[in-house]
Amino acid sequence: MADAPKANAVVGQSGGPTGVINSSLVGVIEEARRHPEIEHLYGAVHAVNGIVNEQFVDLDVISSDILESVASSPSAALGSSRDKPDKEYCERLLKVFQRRNIHYFFYIGGNDSANTAHIINEMADDINYDLRAFHIPKTVDNDLLVTDHCPGYGTAAIFVANALTGDDLDNRSLPGIKIDVIMGRDAGFLTAASALGRQRDDDGPHLIYVPERAVTIDRFVADVEDVYKRLGRCVIAVSEGIKDSDGELWAKKLAENAEVDAHGNVQLSGTGALADFLSTQVKSKLGVKRVRADTFGYLQRSFAGLQSTVDAYEARCCGNNAVKYALEYTSGSVAMKRTGNGDDYAIEYFRTELCNVAEHTKSLPDEFINSEGNNVTAEFIKYASPLTGALAKTEFLGDRPRI
Amino acid sequence: MADAPKANAVVGQSGGPTGVINSSLVGVIEEARRHPEIEHLYGAVHAVNGIVNEQFVDLDVISSDILESVASSPSAALGSSRDKPDKEYCERLLKVFQRRNIHYFFYIGGNDSANTAHIINEMADDINYDLRAFHIPKTVDNDLLVTDHCPGYGTAAIFVANALTGDDLDNRSLPGIKIDVIMGRDAGFLTAASALGRQRDDDGPHLIYVPERAVTIDRFVADVEDVYKRLGRCVIAVSEGIKDSDGELWAKKLAENAEVDAHGNVQLSGTGALADFLSTQVKSKLGVKRVRADTFGYLQRSFAGLQSTVDAYEARCCGNNAVKYALEYTSGSVAMKRTGNGDDYAIEYFRTELCNVAEHTKSLPDEFINSEGNNVTAEFIKYASPLTGALAKTEFLGDRPRI
Repeated sequence: MADAPKANAVVGQSGGPTGVINSSLVGVIEEARRHPEIEHLYGAVHAVNGIVNEQFVDLDVISSDILESVASSPSAALGSSRDKPDKEYCERLLKVFQRRNIHYFFYIGGNDSANTAHIINEMADDINYDLRAFHIPKTVDNDLLVTDHCPGYGTAAIFVANALTGDDLDNRSLPGIKIDVIMGRDAGFLTAASALGRQRDDDGPHLIYVPERAVTIDRFVADVEDVYKRLGRCVIAVSEGIKDSDGELWAKKLAENAEVDAHGNVQLSGTGALADFLSTQVKSKLGVKRVRADTFGYLQRSFAGLQSTVDAYEARCCGNNAVKYALEYTSGSVAMKRTGNGDDYAIEYFRTELCNVAEHTKSLPDEFINSEGNNVTAEFIKYASPLTGALAKTEFLGDRPRI
Repeated sequence: MADAPKANAVVGQSGGPTGVINSSLVGVIEEARRHPEIEHLYGAVHAVNGIVNEQFVDLDVISSDILESVASSPSAALGSSRDKPDKEYCERLLKVFQRRNIHYFFYIGGNDSANTAHIINEMADDINYDLRAFHIPKTVDNDLLVTDHCPGYGTAAIFVANALTGDDLDNRSLPGIKIDVIMGRDAGFLTAASALGRQRDDDGPHLIYVPERAVTIDRFVADVEDVYKRLGRCVIAVSEGIKDSDGELWAKKLAENAEVDAHGNVQLSGTGALADFLSTQVKSKLGVKRVRADTFGYLQRSFAGLQSTVDAYEARCCGNNAVKYALEYTSGSVAMKRTGNGDDYAIEYFRTELCNVAEHTKSLPDEFINSEGNNVTAEFIKYASPLTGALAKTEFLGDRPRI
């Protein structure tokens, strides 16, 4: 293949932000500075939208102090976009690349972003334009194919785990039924992370429902009743993407005017409707007075001042590696392979083809879900624990022997 | 007055838990161990409910390692209660005190708890029983009288500030209108804390609504429209206790079956109804597509692994001081006086009469609210900043000059 061109590069951040998407951005910026093949690095403001409209900021001039502050900031520092480029949109992108002598395209995002990079790369091939299009994975959902896990997941998992640790203690303190609705349209990884903070045998969440297992409202209420009878309280983690036995989203059944985005997805986050519905069902069917429901919403992906050290480091390395791969290959997505676990947890980075990551998503594997479909297994805990690092240790005194 | 009796003591935690109510508990435990007048310290499980039912745990045997872990745990480690004792209930409490030779009663809670301590203390006086009843303030609402601020507020304020810092960056990244509903039935202190993370001139929250200022839905929507036209986005912090111009709670107007607790209060937290109502109003009246609303719910008071260092320290000192005061006086509530601000921030602890704290609550002072009633003032920031300590610094690159 041809030598890496001496040319300009552009980096963009797409889709829902995460707590470490900016670490990946900084990984790209710092690595690009190490290679004279990359003359200038442009930041695309609001992703592909910023490219077609030529809204670029100069990333060559950002000091390392500010870069470190960017790396620890949640959300997408360049701005993001939900645009899903079609062929005509991609043609416009390519024209801008040609006009600005951009031969390196780094796109941090989910599977849709990998797909966008893939389409543009193929179009560039068709006209013999040497474009190096690289996708850097990010998603709190942890649902990308090939990679062991996704940057963004570990940080969101800490938020969810700490939230449930605290909420379970709150529920011990003032017993009742508590329902927490957690992000995750199709994949239950983030909802499963609610289990990571459990320390005592009877710690909640006592029930965990993920999109991978359908549940009827009757079964849901019966499960809650079982736990409530046994413990006098019950904490439940529910994915916003849970489905009824007919395969339809609970959230969709509830939404009178369900909002649909450019990708054809129903709005799930940013509304408390599902939580309130479940709460009302449990309250009326079980006759328990103290039933509460919270929807964690956008805090899960954007809470400031909270990063998984491992996650932030890996996100940055993914950014570094995208640039390194771009000097050797014409396209790809950065992926991670786990080479150890527990105390020996370690990661190797590798390149995979864009088409391996584009479009499709990964679900929570069967071995991570219990046979009843209402909790996670020890295998899941073993898989996810290294991604958050140690979590807050807590104590509860109220269950000690009476004197 | 009489010398401090050599007798047993009981400590309880009442009402909604906070992130540092356990620091106050540990403050009581460690200080009690220093004074031979206190023979045994009992922990009342689920507050007054645990006293009348004689559900006590032995706090003399808890190791210091575990105590430190208790101090950093959110929620009430002894369990809490929403019971509001009447005279007959208080008589039962007093009987248990007599039977167990309990002459020291430490009660960590809000103004209702101060009132309970006050009632029991007067009843003990009536029968010449030397009871030392002390209230230790706690509330995320920061609404107790006399004290400069309340333990529990600084930690909840960090949660709210970090949430808004992140949410505002998220909203910069994917512009639209974002509404965040924050705890606070009558006092707007916690909602006001949403402003503490602002760093740039155009950082959100751009509008802040507190229970102290009524707002009509039309005014609310008009305010949002103004900001949206100016910035192309808008982040709004709304107290769950906001009221319409007729003085009625918005949340009450919405709730078909508003749940009322033992204190006659309508349930506000643990439901997304207010957020969803405001979101629908804004969406339909302004025709803006991307409108989202989150209700922070119980996370604000129970999130694990997050404490304000200042708040945790002060909470512990309040516990220490309650014990010290009990050796000198027969009743009181621990209060804090600010003796410096900014870099010179310092606190002195003092004793105030229970009746000064019982029943009534404090509102956000006028000088902390702007004249339009839709934001906080610089005076508020000056007041509240020392209570959280330094917050996460963030960067956004997308508003830099274009190249």
